[in-house]
Amino acid sequence: MEKPQPEGLSFERVVFFSDAVFAIVITLLVLELKVPHLAEHNESTLRQALFDLLPRVAGFVISFLIIGLMWIEHHRIFRYIADYDSGLLWRNLLVLLCVSFVPFPTALFSENYWSRTAFILYAGSFGAVATAKLLVWRHASKANLLKPDVSPEFDQRIARRSLAVPLACAMAIVLSFVSLWLAPISFIFIPLFARVLDPSRKRNQKIATAKEEAAA
Amino acid sequence: MEKPQPEGLSFERVVFFSDAVFAIVITLLVLELKVPHLAEHNESTLRQALFDLLPRVAGFVISFLIIGLMWIEHHRIFRYIADYDSGLLWRNLLVLLCVSFVPFPTALFSENYWSRTAFILYAGSFGAVATAKLLVWRHASKANLLKPDVSPEFDQRIARRSLAVPLACAMAIVLSFVSLWLAPISFIFIPLFARVLDPSRKRNQKIATAKEEAAA
Amino acid sequence: MEKPQPEGLSFERVVFFSDAVFAIVITLLVLELKVPHLAEHNESTLRQALFDLLPRVAGFVISFLIIGLMWIEHHRIFRYIADYDSGLLWRNLLVLLCVSFVPFPTALFSENYWSRTAFILYAGSFGAVATAKLLVWRHASKANLLKPDVSPEFDQRIARRSLAVPLACAMAIVLSFVSLWLAPISFIFIPLFARVLDPSRKRNQKIATAKEEAAA
Amino acid sequence: MEKPQPEGLSFERVVFFSDAVFAIVITLLVLELKVPHLAEHNESTLRQALFDLLPRVAGFVISFLIIGLMWIEHHRIFRYIADYDSGLLWRNLLVLLCVSFVPFPTALFSENYWSRTAFILYAGSFGAVATAKLLVWRHASKANLLKPDVSPEFDQRIARRSLAVPLACAMAIVLSFVSLWLAPISFIFIPLFARVLDPSRKRNQKIATAKEEAAA
Repeated sequence: MEKPQPEGLSFERVVFFSDAVFAIVITLLVLELKVPHLAEHNESTLRQALFDLLPRVAGFVISFLIIGLMWIEHHRIFRYIADYDSGLLWRNLLVLLCVSFVPFPTALFSENYWSRTAFILYAGSFGAVATAKLLVWRHASKANLLKPDVSPEFDQRIARRSLAVPLACAMAIVLSFVSLWLAPISFIFIPLFARVLDPSRKRNQKIATAKEEAAA
Repeated sequence: MEKPQPEGLSFERVVFFSDAVFAIVITLLVLELKVPHLAEHNESTLRQALFDLLPRVAGFVISFLIIGLMWIEHHRIFRYIADYDSGLLWRNLLVLLCVSFVPFPTALFSENYWSRTAFILYAGSFGAVATAKLLVWRHASKANLLKPDVSPEFDQRIARRSLAVPLACAMAIVLSFVSLWLAPISFIFIPLFARVLDPSRKRNQKIATAKEEAAA
Repeated sequence: MEKPQPEGLSFERVVFFSDAVFAIVITLLVLELKVPHLAEHNESTLRQALFDLLPRVAGFVISFLIIGLMWIEHHRIFRYIADYDSGLLWRNLLVLLCVSFVPFPTALFSENYWSRTAFILYAGSFGAVATAKLLVWRHASKANLLKPDVSPEFDQRIARRSLAVPLACAMAIVLSFVSLWLAPISFIFIPLFARVLDPSRKRNQKIATAKEEAAA
Repeated sequence: MEKPQPEGLSFERVVFFSDAVFAIVITLLVLELKVPHLAEHNESTLRQALFDLLPRVAGFVISFLIIGLMWIEHHRIFRYIADYDSGLLWRNLLVLLCVSFVPFPTALFSENYWSRTAFILYAGSFGAVATAKLLVWRHASKANLLKPDVSPEFDQRIARRSLAVPLACAMAIVLSFVSLWLAPISFIFIPLFARVLDPSRKRNQKIATAKEEAAA
């Protein structure tokens, strides 16, 4: 399972393959919303059944948004990467392994939203994706795979900002020992953490090239 | 879950990712057509079981066509968009969130086609996709992300025409209080509404570039 | 559900979207191979359960190969199409609707391989895909959407060859009234029918451009 | 099911279609991790249920990594292929057929990890993918479809290295008659086998073009 043979694999395809995995996972999440089977056919029974589904719907929406955020971040770091080696390929496969695992803890937690164990697995799986992504960036930086116009400061900023999701997940896990209702609030802090860890980034700015961004 | 970091995300990938989500959702719809398990193995039992599936098949076909229509419309507006910012990215993720939710109300309604609640959720989910799409276009227009050759008139025409699906959905929801058999007919009015809201568009015309179209 | 608005939809994306639907459908087929749940844990029970699955495995393999063939044919005709209008878009969506429906009759027939009704639906769904594809080609030809170097003879050859799959499906349905074991053999005749309907095509030839092909 | 008509099918689309199938299969694997339904709602019951899932999680991870490895190898050989004919297309469809079958033996073995029959099917399916891939390469080499700068030595190296996975699978099947716990260890030997079969390849090297690689 080690020592891949990356010669002859086009970089564009690596990104395309990653995109496809993200898209499939984000779409599979809805399959966990099982249509309720009703004992009797009347509107109030159906409404009650839908109401009982709300925690799962919340799980679906939160997972969708977090995977969406991770897809955005995955792309951002890959735009600054110019080359790759087998180390990068396998670290990226690790990201995709973590991403494709996410539907399981999402389903587990949305079915067992009373369980701290389920929540820890849920938050932990997002932390694992983000940490694997950080490993990709670290490796790209160490192995000289970044584009030449990426400055060391910009490299550091990406690495710091990449800590926002793992931090929020760690906070969520700690908070889950206080209250399971409080813990998911940690995810709302992701953009705040990203701002604090990378204060030089401006809000809602237009897309800058790696050069302009690095020069900024 | 806010303040994304879009620098360095290629615009083409945003469209590709959206395409993949649309393709997966439109294909997952068929999974709701469960093969009937027969008590006895004879042709008439099987035919009866297939006959009982007809409302689900109808739901599958209608959802397929509406999602197909939305994919076409999604592409149309994205061709006139030249740039993007984090606001556009998150509004587009909202579109995809609504699209990936569609299989659930489709399954719910095709299993409970006697239920007004189920139909309202069904029609409402299509309305939500179309409304999110309109938010994308509005934001692109306000934030100066449109191609330079898109005239203000053309911008307005797209925005008006984008109201056709939400209007048809609202009409369907209102009609569902009269009759659940009548209500789905509203969807047939989508092309009529589009024509009325955007009367200058011609039928079956060949593809025009943004420039030609805007100049027309 | 009619009168689409295709201006501003890139042709490449139409093909990409079709590819994605074909790829998802061809991969979803395996989901019908449900892992057997064993009453007792021993090798002979498992082997017997796997043996009982063989008709489903056969259904999986046949559907995979036929969808694969249809994907190849879909691409072939799209390479000679230079432009598109809303009529082509909706005819292509009809192809995709039929393709995405295929997993249902495949599952139905592989579970009820004793049933003529199930087989007719199975063979009919492949015939529907092929017929919809022929509609795409006919429309492209009539509406002047073909590449300029496609000769009228070549146009006719494609149209004739496209009849091979519908013919084989019709033959399968007729034969199913004689014997359900005999009927699937019809699918083996697809390449023969294609040869008879388009005798000028050579075997195993390298890829020719539309021009060379048309000139041949 | 034979004699395809590849004229007019762009080579890029063949690779794209293959990528999509690999991405879907690698993501579908997680669907086999079914959320346990608990008799009583308490943390220790849930933890025990998750613990019981560990063999399935292991199956998920191993299958993910092996399919990931095969995707990398699939791309590698396709980069050296310049042209294609119908023989290549159908051999590639055979690769995809084997790949899309993999979720079934993965689910079967992770549910019946006591069964040698299940393990043999599991290891055999990976061997089948790798063997089909070797058939693609052999055909490309014989039918003169390789890029002109691929030297005969390089051609031989790829063919030799492609034997690593079938060898490891054969070893796993043989070992399974000794011990089912020992047998999966064979997969760890894949990189070693690849090294032994192709000793001239260097570790972790940057991506080389076909020319540089062939010249090396």
